[in-house]
Amino acid sequence: MSVNKPVVTEDLKIFAKQTSDEVENAMRSDLDQTLQATDPLLREVLTHSLFNGGKRVRPMLVILASRICGKNDQALLRLAAAFEYLHVATLIHDDVIDGAAERRGRPSLVQSHGIAAAILTGDWLHARSMQLISEIAGEHALNIFCRATTGMVDGEYLQIRHTGNIAITEEQYFSIIERKTGGLIASACEIGAIYSSASEPQRRALASYGNNLGIAFQVIDDLLDYLGDQKSTGKKIGQDLVEGKITLPLIRTLAKAAPEDLSLLQNLFDDPAKREAHFPEIKNIITQNGGFDSALATAVKSVRNAVDALTIFDEKPMDSSRAMLEGLAHYVISRKK
Amino acid sequence: MSVNKPVVTEDLKIFAKQTSDEVENAMRSDLDQTLQATDPLLREVLTHSLFNGGKRVRPMLVILASRICGKNDQALLRLAAAFEYLHVATLIHDDVIDGAAERRGRPSLVQSHGIAAAILTGDWLHARSMQLISEIAGEHALNIFCRATTGMVDGEYLQIRHTGNIAITEEQYFSIIERKTGGLIASACEIGAIYSSASEPQRRALASYGNNLGIAFQVIDDLLDYLGDQKSTGKKIGQDLVEGKITLPLIRTLAKAAPEDLSLLQNLFDDPAKREAHFPEIKNIITQNGGFDSALATAVKSVRNAVDALTIFDEKPMDSSRAMLEGLAHYVISRKK
Repeated sequence: MSVNKPVVTEDLKIFAKQTSDEVENAMRSDLDQTLQATDPLLREVLTHSLFNGGKRVRPMLVILASRICGKNDQALLRLAAAFEYLHVATLIHDDVIDGAAERRGRPSLVQSHGIAAAILTGDWLHARSMQLISEIAGEHALNIFCRATTGMVDGEYLQIRHTGNIAITEEQYFSIIERKTGGLIASACEIGAIYSSASEPQRRALASYGNNLGIAFQVIDDLLDYLGDQKSTGKKIGQDLVEGKITLPLIRTLAKAAPEDLSLLQNLFDDPAKREAHFPEIKNIITQNGGFDSALATAVKSVRNAVDALTIFDEKPMDSSRAMLEGLAHYVISRKK
Repeated sequence: MSVNKPVVTEDLKIFAKQTSDEVENAMRSDLDQTLQATDPLLREVLTHSLFNGGKRVRPMLVILASRICGKNDQALLRLAAAFEYLHVATLIHDDVIDGAAERRGRPSLVQSHGIAAAILTGDWLHARSMQLISEIAGEHALNIFCRATTGMVDGEYLQIRHTGNIAITEEQYFSIIERKTGGLIASACEIGAIYSSASEPQRRALASYGNNLGIAFQVIDDLLDYLGDQKSTGKKIGQDLVEGKITLPLIRTLAKAAPEDLSLLQNLFDDPAKREAHFPEIKNIITQNGGFDSALATAVKSVRNAVDALTIFDEKPMDSSRAMLEGLAHYVISRKK
């Protein structure tokens, strides 16, 4: 990989903790200011949803993308917070859609406060995220952000369309994950650059970094659905498969499996209960056909593309932004949750 | 009332029909342009939700507010469409929250296409509305719009807090309806003015018109919950009361009812089924205490304030915008649905 120096994981951890604290402070002070005359329950549910140990990956990307182009100030933290608002809004609405009882090991908002609170809180965060982005980064940034958020909805629709469709192509899979996950991550990097009045090549480089990072992030997510540990991921293993979501490891397997494996797999796709019961068998067929290795290789390649996109930025003695962005990219590959 | 000339209802009807057609064309062409590469199901559900006989009151207000300040062009129709997008987004999410099977006499989106489609479509419309407003009317307008939409969420929370609370005060009631309904209507008028580069007094006058109109609109809505005809309103009569929403006619009644009526009413507020069974009796007590007349008088006063706010605009021979705004205000009082 074209990494110029070893990734200092300890540095990244310290940076992540510090950034996470700063972004949380920015969120708290934004809520203080915005919720002054509002119902206390709204504040309670927002606090419940926003402060529960999220990794703050998107805010970190906004901050690093701006810093690598030379701008770092207080308002940047509020801009970064806007991306966490939107991310949490989508998680809250996802939990309503999936009827999920838990989120990160705690009751989901829909579980603890009901459907009205969950839908409305998601809507509030959605609106506030856009207001912050428009105010801090301007109209062009908001335009990119809205393209990402409407794209996420489109990605979900595409996913619904292809649920249970074992004829789904790689192209269709990538077009789903680029919209569903890649778009927002790319927009975090691009909007950080715009906030920093980056040059056109800088902005494009960061958008490319973000897009590749987003793809790798989702491919790894899809691998963790098979290979993860529920204690780490906080998600039931095999859940996506049971729901009929056909992801890269299985797509690659379907493309090359022996006829008897293929007909077995096809036979399982008319019934979620069958998929649940035969999960170890399905996993085994994928392993034997190299589906997991092949998907991982794709994620690694995507991370390499992400890191390569950063080569236009010089290493600066006093600024570790590039190393941090590289470190984040490698973290995406090695993460267990 | 300080209406300068009789409201030409026929003119208003023609204007409403024409505006509604123009706004629908603007929505269709926006969807054509925006949905080019997206999943066809997204288009189907957006069409299902947007084109179903809505009254297009908010778009009309945007258009008239801009026109009365002197600006009328094609982009104004797209700005107006953004308000219909947001309005429909809130209706779709409301139907999910209420588990409503119908909307305007047809299956609601959550009923016809499921919860995922309904939540996601609401989110899409929400995002697109903000993108349009930022693009066409700028950052200040978006800021006002977001204050209105986050305020709507806050109004819903306040309403949830006071559900079944027969000690609710008039002040609390008005603070709910100003946020829930008044804010978006006021912002439609104010943003129309901003788009038209209105003077500060013009902008304030239109915001005041909108705010008063919004209050009247919601008070009449609350009256129709008791006095409406299900065939016209498309809503089950007494539904709000059964759900524990205590509105102006009942608040005014509770403030002056005889002790025996009061204890009867209080007794009904621990059980929705009791309220449903005793609806005619409750209605009768409100009538006898003048609760309906008194609420109607408040709506009429609010419409008068709305119309009075328009007096800073001169009547112009070639522009009927002021007459139309006055007409709309009067329509709000006389409407049956």
